[in-house]
Amino acid sequence: MKNTNVRVSLPAVCFVWQIAMIVLFGVFVRYDKESDAHWVELKKTENLTDLDNEFYFRYPSFQDVHVMIFVGFGFLMTFLKRYSFSAVGFNFLIAAFGLQWALLMQGWFHHFDYSTGKIYIGIESMINADFCCAGSLIAYGAILGKVSPVQLMVVTLFGVTLFAVEEFIILDLFHCRDAGGAMVIHCFGGYYGLAISWVLYRPNLHRSKRLNGSVYQSDLFAMIGTLFLWMFWPSFNSAIANHGEGQHRTAMNTYIALASSVLTTVAISSMSKKGGKLDMVHIQNATLAGGVAMGTAAELMITPYGSLIVGFCIGIISTFGYLYITPFLEERFKLQDTCGIHNLHAVPGMLGGFTGAIVAATASESVYSKEGLIATFDFTGKFENRSPGTQGGFQAAGVCVAMAFGLVGGAIVGFILKFPIWGDAADDNCFDDEAYWEVRRTPNKMRKKNTYILPKCFLSPSVGFDPCLKA
Amino acid sequence: MKNTNVRVSLPAVCFVWQIAMIVLFGVFVRYDKESDAHWVELKKTENLTDLDNEFYFRYPSFQDVHVMIFVGFGFLMTFLKRYSFSAVGFNFLIAAFGLQWALLMQGWFHHFDYSTGKIYIGIESMINADFCCAGSLIAYGAILGKVSPVQLMVVTLFGVTLFAVEEFIILDLFHCRDAGGAMVIHCFGGYYGLAISWVLYRPNLHRSKRLNGSVYQSDLFAMIGTLFLWMFWPSFNSAIANHGEGQHRTAMNTYIALASSVLTTVAISSMSKKGGKLDMVHIQNATLAGGVAMGTAAELMITPYGSLIVGFCIGIISTFGYLYITPFLEERFKLQDTCGIHNLHAVPGMLGGFTGAIVAATASESVYSKEGLIATFDFTGKFENRSPGTQGGFQAAGVCVAMAFGLVGGAIVGFILKFPIWGDAADDNCFDDEAYWEVRRTPNKMRKKNTYILPKCFLSPSVGFDPCLKA
Amino acid sequence: MKNTNVRVSLPAVCFVWQIAMIVLFGVFVRYDKESDAHWVELKKTENLTDLDNEFYFRYPSFQDVHVMIFVGFGFLMTFLKRYSFSAVGFNFLIAAFGLQWALLMQGWFHHFDYSTGKIYIGIESMINADFCCAGSLIAYGAILGKVSPVQLMVVTLFGVTLFAVEEFIILDLFHCRDAGGAMVIHCFGGYYGLAISWVLYRPNLHRSKRLNGSVYQSDLFAMIGTLFLWMFWPSFNSAIANHGEGQHRTAMNTYIALASSVLTTVAISSMSKKGGKLDMVHIQNATLAGGVAMGTAAELMITPYGSLIVGFCIGIISTFGYLYITPFLEERFKLQDTCGIHNLHAVPGMLGGFTGAIVAATASESVYSKEGLIATFDFTGKFENRSPGTQGGFQAAGVCVAMAFGLVGGAIVGFILKFPIWGDAADDNCFDDEAYWEVRRTPNKMRKKNTYILPKCFLSPSVGFDPCLKA
Repeated sequence: MKNTNVRVSLPAVCFVWQIAMIVLFGVFVRYDKESDAHWVELKKTENLTDLDNEFYFRYPSFQDVHVMIFVGFGFLMTFLKRYSFSAVGFNFLIAAFGLQWALLMQGWFHHFDYSTGKIYIGIESMINADFCCAGSLIAYGAILGKVSPVQLMVVTLFGVTLFAVEEFIILDLFHCRDAGGAMVIHCFGGYYGLAISWVLYRPNLHRSKRLNGSVYQSDLFAMIGTLFLWMFWPSFNSAIANHGEGQHRTAMNTYIALASSVLTTVAISSMSKKGGKLDMVHIQNATLAGGVAMGTAAELMITPYGSLIVGFCIGIISTFGYLYITPFLEERFKLQDTCGIHNLHAVPGMLGGFTGAIVAATASESVYSKEGLIATFDFTGKFENRSPGTQGGFQAAGVCVAMAFGLVGGAIVGFILKFPIWGDAADDNCFDDEAYWEVRRTPNKMRKKNTYILPKCFLSPSVGFDPCLKA
Repeated sequence: MKNTNVRVSLPAVCFVWQIAMIVLFGVFVRYDKESDAHWVELKKTENLTDLDNEFYFRYPSFQDVHVMIFVGFGFLMTFLKRYSFSAVGFNFLIAAFGLQWALLMQGWFHHFDYSTGKIYIGIESMINADFCCAGSLIAYGAILGKVSPVQLMVVTLFGVTLFAVEEFIILDLFHCRDAGGAMVIHCFGGYYGLAISWVLYRPNLHRSKRLNGSVYQSDLFAMIGTLFLWMFWPSFNSAIANHGEGQHRTAMNTYIALASSVLTTVAISSMSKKGGKLDMVHIQNATLAGGVAMGTAAELMITPYGSLIVGFCIGIISTFGYLYITPFLEERFKLQDTCGIHNLHAVPGMLGGFTGAIVAATASESVYSKEGLIATFDFTGKFENRSPGTQGGFQAAGVCVAMAFGLVGGAIVGFILKFPIWGDAADDNCFDDEAYWEVRRTPNKMRKKNTYILPKCFLSPSVGFDPCLKA
Repeated sequence: MKNTNVRVSLPAVCFVWQIAMIVLFGVFVRYDKESDAHWVELKKTENLTDLDNEFYFRYPSFQDVHVMIFVGFGFLMTFLKRYSFSAVGFNFLIAAFGLQWALLMQGWFHHFDYSTGKIYIGIESMINADFCCAGSLIAYGAILGKVSPVQLMVVTLFGVTLFAVEEFIILDLFHCRDAGGAMVIHCFGGYYGLAISWVLYRPNLHRSKRLNGSVYQSDLFAMIGTLFLWMFWPSFNSAIANHGEGQHRTAMNTYIALASSVLTTVAISSMSKKGGKLDMVHIQNATLAGGVAMGTAAELMITPYGSLIVGFCIGIISTFGYLYITPFLEERFKLQDTCGIHNLHAVPGMLGGFTGAIVAATASESVYSKEGLIATFDFTGKFENRSPGTQGGFQAAGVCVAMAFGLVGGAIVGFILKFPIWGDAADDNCFDDEAYWEVRRTPNKMRKKNTYILPKCFLSPSVGFDPCLKA
């Protein structure tokens, strides 16, 4: 068995990186004008009211996004019967680190003030930092159960870094619109995780197959994650959309598309199984694909029925992915994808990006109004003369950039993680919390004597909550 | 055993209805002016700011309501030991379908523009669609464990339709106030579910009695539902109340009434059991009755102590209902009400409607101010000359309409559901997820050999989390 | 065994106190001008818009705080394997009572209008009432599993009363700033609970040691509490901060500090155990210390890196507390602290108060701007000429007042609770839901025959969800 002792490496990484954060924040990070005490004077000179503070436009959405990152992603991954501590705990750890590093990286790329040498942060930075973490949390889904917390910290360090760069290219250089991050978050994060997992292929992973599955209660815990993701996805997509109609329309389109993908997910799931029985894996995951696929287009005038169609198609595609593509990828391409992020993030993100490109390319003044078109695509400054068609082209190029960053970056990070210094578990010890957590067992002294001597008959399953029921 | 195979019917219903939604949305549904890109120009011509967008008045409340619908209702029903997947999963399915159908139905009745032939939707439509689903989700509570997902889709299709009509009569024709839907949501939904359940009476339901109960963990999952409902009920009642003081007062009255009903629920629950032990059924349900009962009156000047009194009484009534009325109805009236919606929705909704009628009838200019009275009851247009007394009469009539729609509509839907084509379970197979879900059991190959051969002794209970504890 | 029958006392206390609330609300409590129907006229005369209603500045934060109080505190305490009903249920009960009593107590001390003899309540009163409950809920953490619900009602009655008085001294007389209540909530509540627990010392508590611990699923339920507390702490600290930049900065500082404390908690937890394994107790609790410690300073210009440093230090201190101080206190000082509130609330609250004092004392016009300084510390009226240095001194004095109230008040309440009339459990019956809850066991008639006869081998542990796994 490999050595999963992280008693030196994990504290070392946490301390070194946290101290680095403190130093870098000390050098670079300051309050922006809307969170600085000088705002009180600024209000008077610029004739503003407190309500003009960006805080009131964004804070409710921020809190929803925050719930998605920590409870949504965290609990969605608790479905494994004995890896729930790691799912929710390591998700907590890497998101808490990732958001700090994201404030810095995104600050340097987007909000760096060359005159003062500082980054100024506010509520929008917090939302973007949460978004930036999401890329790495998605990647965690592919490698869930197979890596150590130290490796996850490395995945996050590089993930956030790559994210900030691709985001700069896509949003700033290409001037794409991507409010909900179909491209920059989901497509990037999905392929990043898949590439890492592909490099870290474990030929003998079947040795811990007994643990790579769910039980009744763990599926219910996962539903907590699913539902909080599903419910708050309208906030996710609209959190940094334009004020007013921008946020309004984005939230509504996402709401509609998500509803639609639930029905097609149920339909395909039921069709695929004997007796029409539903599979929790599909309900937990594919229902969310509508939100991912609307990440770019939700902000645009895709129309309500357009949103329904996107949700309709992506629910089918995502469920098919869980049924056929994930097993196919594992068998043929040696790609082990624990949570099936290929079907929930990578493909829906990519398709969502292209959907956005098409909707952007077909935008017209009659639909948006002249000023509406300018506002929606921010055709100002040096992009003043860009046509919707050109915009569509750049949007499509953005998808490719996100994929390329994910795949190449993930492959490199994967190779780094192959060094035998990171404390990951042996093949027969994967998906097991006991590698990294104190798992309480019996009260007190009973422990020694009776551990693990169960009667054979007890090997039979606990169906539902009460194991005694079907005797 | 009846045939619970829904492999054809469930996908068929999902696909047909979802495609119908796409077509109907394509023909009818458009963005309203506050979510359309033209808003950018409208802002200028009408001298508005982004903050005037309805989105900022309603969106935080919408998200709270959304949580209530999906996590609140969903998890509240997970209390059954082996029906938690169906509780949370089918709730998810029918709410996702129902909200689409509600956008259409409510649109036709309330927001149809005859000049363009379109329905224009925005944030308020989303809240109302969620509300409209709630009626059918309440009905699900009465028939939980006894119907197939296909039947639930039918319940929802008709439930939403009936809701839109009764709502039109009560809110538009009678011009009632019912911000939190004591009448239109809870009273209607409660009696709708009871009537369905009454028609679907199963004389041999006792055959699955072993499954019709909770275990320790399932009760805890249900508490997640209870608490999210309880906490967000102020948002539920205030979500579409008048801007400003209307939303403010509605939220506060609901908050106060809910607190009060917790104490009387605990008191009655403790009094009723040997040793004063509390019953989780009461804590999970009757504590919420305060929110239901304030559904109409919370918007009015009922006063803070008036709210306390409503909560006080309804906590007692609801707990008594669980103790005596539900068993009585089952025995004498052949009414099987799995979740006891009679005590949580039907009766509190009805009483809440009458409370609202009384508070409305006693409204005066001295308490509301002249303009406050007009604004609160919307005494404008053709209702300009209505007196509070008349308003109270119409409010009381509204309760009767809601009950009538629930009872008659539910009876009809119940008869439709009696056709033997819907895939519902046999009497000895109710309350069991295995009818409609792939329930994971053992890892891999163990499955065949040892299934269901437990030692007799194992029939003894698992109290608390750890079955080994009390040996 | 002691008599845990509360069939008379619990209903009696609930009814008497709830009726008292109704009477006192009837005499004293009215809507404030922003929730009264007269607002419609006031808007016109004072030229306000609906958005100026305080509701829109505070309501989203209020709902977040509400979730923390009921789901956060409630589920955080479900970690005990057989005391989860009591954790979440009694938390529900006492918070629902406490907030009513808090509306009155805080109203008398802060919002009493001597001209009319009334208290006028609005959204800020609701937030403050929730805050006020938090003090008593914290205290519940120290005595979790060892007291009866009747005793908890007494703890809450006195806790809210003491809170209102110390808050009046600290915020009004000393004119301290304490937006997130490091002093008034956490420091007070922590020492209040510790003092009660110290007086109620049970020398033979080891008799129920078998129940004083967690199992796999109960730890996961507790993580629901942890995460909702962690995510919404920025709302907790900013809920009643100044409009605009005040709320904005407070939320951001808290967000940053919390992220930092996660990393140091993980580091210390991993360092302390063989193999570097993490302890759920630390992850569930010490990660939250960053929010407590920023309770006072988050509102001030502590700078982003200052927030990181606070989180860094308090994560270490809190985790050390769980590792060494709690066992030490139990052994040497006969202080049994079930949830370790000493390390999560008492000490971080105290240190947070002193941090705030230091940050206040070093405030300058260059950092805050002249008007920013006045607005942040409310140097108006009779405090017009107070210097930041003086303010720092008063802040430090405030910490001492909070501690003194907690310790002395807690000791007195503890002695009251020692009377043998309250229905608390015997030493060998602590931490057991069966004392106060109907705990469902087997379906139907099986109950009598087979209860509690498990095979010896079954004494072995259930690790993870599936007890059969490791056989």
